[in-house]
Amino acid sequence: MAKHKITLLPSQETLDVPTGTLITEAIQEAGLEIAQPCGGQGRCGRCAVILEGDGARLRSTIRLSEQDLDTGYALACQTVIEGEVSITIPEQEAVARRLVTDKSVAKVEVPFPYDPNRLQTVRVMRVNLKEPTYDDNRDDVSRLETELAQNGYSHVEIPLGLLQKTSEVLRASNWSPWIVFEILDPNTKQIRLIDMSPDQIKPVGLAIDIGTTTVTTYLVDLETGEVIGSAAEYNQQITRGEDVISRIIFANKGDGLKDLSRLVRDTIDELLERLRRRTGISPETIHKVTISGNTTMIHLFLELPPDSIRLTPFTPTINTPMKLIASEIGLKVHPMALVDCLPGVASYVGADITAGVLASGLSDSEELTLFIDVGTNGEIVLGSSDWMITCACSAGPAFEGAGVYDGMRATEGAIEEVWVHSETHEPTYRVIGGVKAQGICGSGLISLLAELFVTGVIDRGGNVRLDLDTPRVRQGEHGPEYVVAWGAETETGKDITLTNVDVENLMRAKAAIYAGFSILATSVGLELADVQRVLIGGAFGKYINVEKATQIGLLPDLPWDRFHFLGNTSVLGTYMALLSRFSRERVKEIASKMTYIELSADNTFFDAFTAALFLPHTDISRFPNVAEIWET
Amino acid sequence: MAKHKITLLPSQETLDVPTGTLITEAIQEAGLEIAQPCGGQGRCGRCAVILEGDGARLRSTIRLSEQDLDTGYALACQTVIEGEVSITIPEQEAVARRLVTDKSVAKVEVPFPYDPNRLQTVRVMRVNLKEPTYDDNRDDVSRLETELAQNGYSHVEIPLGLLQKTSEVLRASNWSPWIVFEILDPNTKQIRLIDMSPDQIKPVGLAIDIGTTTVTTYLVDLETGEVIGSAAEYNQQITRGEDVISRIIFANKGDGLKDLSRLVRDTIDELLERLRRRTGISPETIHKVTISGNTTMIHLFLELPPDSIRLTPFTPTINTPMKLIASEIGLKVHPMALVDCLPGVASYVGADITAGVLASGLSDSEELTLFIDVGTNGEIVLGSSDWMITCACSAGPAFEGAGVYDGMRATEGAIEEVWVHSETHEPTYRVIGGVKAQGICGSGLISLLAELFVTGVIDRGGNVRLDLDTPRVRQGEHGPEYVVAWGAETETGKDITLTNVDVENLMRAKAAIYAGFSILATSVGLELADVQRVLIGGAFGKYINVEKATQIGLLPDLPWDRFHFLGNTSVLGTYMALLSRFSRERVKEIASKMTYIELSADNTFFDAFTAALFLPHTDISRFPNVAEIWET
Repeated sequence: MAKHKITLLPSQETLDVPTGTLITEAIQEAGLEIAQPCGGQGRCGRCAVILEGDGARLRSTIRLSEQDLDTGYALACQTVIEGEVSITIPEQEAVARRLVTDKSVAKVEVPFPYDPNRLQTVRVMRVNLKEPTYDDNRDDVSRLETELAQNGYSHVEIPLGLLQKTSEVLRASNWSPWIVFEILDPNTKQIRLIDMSPDQIKPVGLAIDIGTTTVTTYLVDLETGEVIGSAAEYNQQITRGEDVISRIIFANKGDGLKDLSRLVRDTIDELLERLRRRTGISPETIHKVTISGNTTMIHLFLELPPDSIRLTPFTPTINTPMKLIASEIGLKVHPMALVDCLPGVASYVGADITAGVLASGLSDSEELTLFIDVGTNGEIVLGSSDWMITCACSAGPAFEGAGVYDGMRATEGAIEEVWVHSETHEPTYRVIGGVKAQGICGSGLISLLAELFVTGVIDRGGNVRLDLDTPRVRQGEHGPEYVVAWGAETETGKDITLTNVDVENLMRAKAAIYAGFSILATSVGLELADVQRVLIGGAFGKYINVEKATQIGLLPDLPWDRFHFLGNTSVLGTYMALLSRFSRERVKEIASKMTYIELSADNTFFDAFTAALFLPHTDISRFPNVAEIWET
Repeated sequence: MAKHKITLLPSQETLDVPTGTLITEAIQEAGLEIAQPCGGQGRCGRCAVILEGDGARLRSTIRLSEQDLDTGYALACQTVIEGEVSITIPEQEAVARRLVTDKSVAKVEVPFPYDPNRLQTVRVMRVNLKEPTYDDNRDDVSRLETELAQNGYSHVEIPLGLLQKTSEVLRASNWSPWIVFEILDPNTKQIRLIDMSPDQIKPVGLAIDIGTTTVTTYLVDLETGEVIGSAAEYNQQITRGEDVISRIIFANKGDGLKDLSRLVRDTIDELLERLRRRTGISPETIHKVTISGNTTMIHLFLELPPDSIRLTPFTPTINTPMKLIASEIGLKVHPMALVDCLPGVASYVGADITAGVLASGLSDSEELTLFIDVGTNGEIVLGSSDWMITCACSAGPAFEGAGVYDGMRATEGAIEEVWVHSETHEPTYRVIGGVKAQGICGSGLISLLAELFVTGVIDRGGNVRLDLDTPRVRQGEHGPEYVVAWGAETETGKDITLTNVDVENLMRAKAAIYAGFSILATSVGLELADVQRVLIGGAFGKYINVEKATQIGLLPDLPWDRFHFLGNTSVLGTYMALLSRFSRERVKEIASKMTYIELSADNTFFDAFTAALFLPHTDISRFPNVAEIWET
């Protein structure tokens, strides 16, 4: 097959690729990264590159204007190389890196009174074996089993890798080795050995929350229960799609699944290395790993094809993965460490939610509680210690800044809060990092939409009122819009606006979530007003302003003291399940107790969604406090 | 470190090796083989090579005569390279290959009425799953578990490799996949999936007997129970030591353990390839592997350090290995196949004996039975269906032809049977392959010793009577000796003799075995004369002449109709345990029922051994039939 020389700029790398190679493939082959938020479907327009030369054929030009095409722009994921060409990767498309939330997890309290001898999942002990004699020359393993049986552990699994060093360690330790084991089944006292040494072993565990956007890790002392260190980083899969659907599509193409699986492992490796530098603890001493994440993230981590998650009727391969051995899945911790992926409930209510419910305390109280995790997806649980009902809302990534023209992630340069003057309609805003604005992030969008609504710039149907006497509202390229920042104030020199189309996207997102609330409540014959606690988890949740979110109808209109922001409940619940058999059992109970409602199969969903496509809602009586403000 | 150029002849390979390299190491590095029957201890003299040049230092010259040294001979395992040198590897030291016993296993009967649905360890079935709907969109694994639970299998393990293809197979099979699983625990109905396919799967199993000398395999149809094919080959470890002790010593040096472990795997790979060619069945379709072998062989196969087996008080790492996954130990069968190493009893009574006892039927009868496996080692079991007692005899490799000047293995050119004229003392003999004689193998040595004894050439103390009027007896280089073949008749042109020293070695070997019999009988208050059946297993056993073996006191003096030769009982028992859960349970029972007596710790052993150091025994009344012949 003919090969063609291509040059990548600004790095000036050259490589030869065969006819038909996608530009995205060529870029990846050169070891460079390009963002593909939509997973290479040609929908998002984020992978635009500038071409020089005739050697490329554009399959699709959606998202590119005439002007873009004249300038030489092409979508890397939709452009095929057929000859010599030089490709410039615009710097702004390199994956943005912010100071991730390492700091926010720096100090974590042990979540319960921790008694390592009562609760622990992993135990260290020194066993004193009888030295063999002619009268008692049983094999080493029988000797060890006898001693462990006297400690109540009647069934012992020993992995081959450990068996291979048993002889040496028993003798080097003078028949008193230190052993580390995991308690597999507290009832049958079944255990599995993980390590064995003549020297004392300090057992360390790792809790990992694999988020679609961010991977968060806690390094935990399994004897004291303390978090020794923590680290978080973007999930490197982001370059292959920003939401789970894009990743599933990517996984289904060629070696996409292998690639995504490798990327999340690479991310974890990077975090392990960071934890090592920070704490001095080698990853090889990590004797147990507990993992949560949404069902797609867990599938990609285990290299399970996720396609059926996306296709009706949305069935994953597995909700309750078995324990795996670290070496089996290539995690660079102790090779014999057991890796425990927490159970999920359904394709779109995963282990991040069961762990989140555990951490939130929803299942510990008889109070009617609404638990919401608004991350890249929106999952909702309604219930108490007695029962739980759950659903997932395809809110879309609008609150992540995608699908909004000037939307962006919550990184430096993002407008995160906006105030609009009720008479002049002039905005004031705050930018992350205190720099010039580049765009608007999720919390900024909620804030802006709420302000525009309560100040009357936008009507209840979501339309920008062009009849207002301010240059801030105008007919723009994409229809009516409100200008948040003039070009003179911005990093790019262009105006930052919120268009009618953006508002529609945001309203669909919030309507989907609110419809979820309504349906859960209705399905058990309750009103949302009966909810006694609203627990909000997820990274995004931390930055939501309840007042603003209520004003646009994203959150139910309840007294503010019922709302609690819990941060990353997924990693917290994972940490608890890592530490304690009791908590681990609770997660299992939570997963099995949850009734899952598939909204796309619920014939009342469309009505509930449509009713919520107003600000704050068609039925304003559901939002008495908002009605009061808005009517004044 | 200085490097030196060495040349290997006759292959003319050259390589550079650092100062201090052993010649054996250099030969192995060049990818060539040299026999090291004693494991590189410098004891056997079999690795002699011819040196030219000054670049080598001899650490030890045991086993080499002045003349050998003058000719340039040196022991490869005891000679260190310190400069340029050329090394000739004598062709006769290349590992001898005979036509191994492939033919003898060509037709094997199914050992019991085989009902695959009642007994089988591995099952194939087609399961019909309900297609998922919105109302029932559980994960794929739950769906499969529900169906299996309805078939009585309540606990299902799925390995990761299989989980990764579950989604695809379920859909490609239109929710009716074929599955293969192993029944882990018939009581709890715990199973482990091994394979899954839209197409029908034919389950095949492999029984392997890892002998110190020969590895034997049966390829088995798990539905009919039939042996589809069989193959046997020398254990490639032979080049690193002929007996278990030499191999243990070799394993303890450098990468010796890895090397030995690889060699037995290579041997099995070769056999798998041969079975594939012969039957057309791909090794990847082998869904279960059952293995027996002595404790050292199992340790080397699993890469467990065997050193403690050789050191007092002779404790192995493990007698009852757990089931392993084929991919975990690098067996080139179906990667998810379970590999089941049968249980042994002690360091010197291994799985080959428990499998052998199963196959022999010892444990099925109330008759007092003596089971003997004389292979490279000698193991003995005395008992019945009610009880069993066992011991191992360090007979040494005399019956394998080692430790005897003109001894050799039972390959072409070996004298295998001898008759001595009672008056002229002239011998007649038969040679394997009908060619010129090169030496004497084990059965030939028993035959020769018995003949010399009953014809009075050797007295009851084992001394060659030099006063006889025949040139066949003479004072040789190594003391008194009997000439079996004159140089004119032999392949090498040298006389083949049996020396007084050889006789002493043979008497020590047979005395050790007979002492074992005595001690077992005494320890349960019985006489050997009470034994109702003598079952003889092992490759060597097939060639033993009962009359001759009784005459020298190797076997007890009982009516000949009580002796039964069973061939390779180890592979037969392994085959039974591969096929049937019932047989597998029996092996476990046999292993746990056997009482092991450590002869080296038994203070009556020395007396029993000394008493047996006569022909046939100090107490001739134990051998009434022999006494009758000898006295006439």
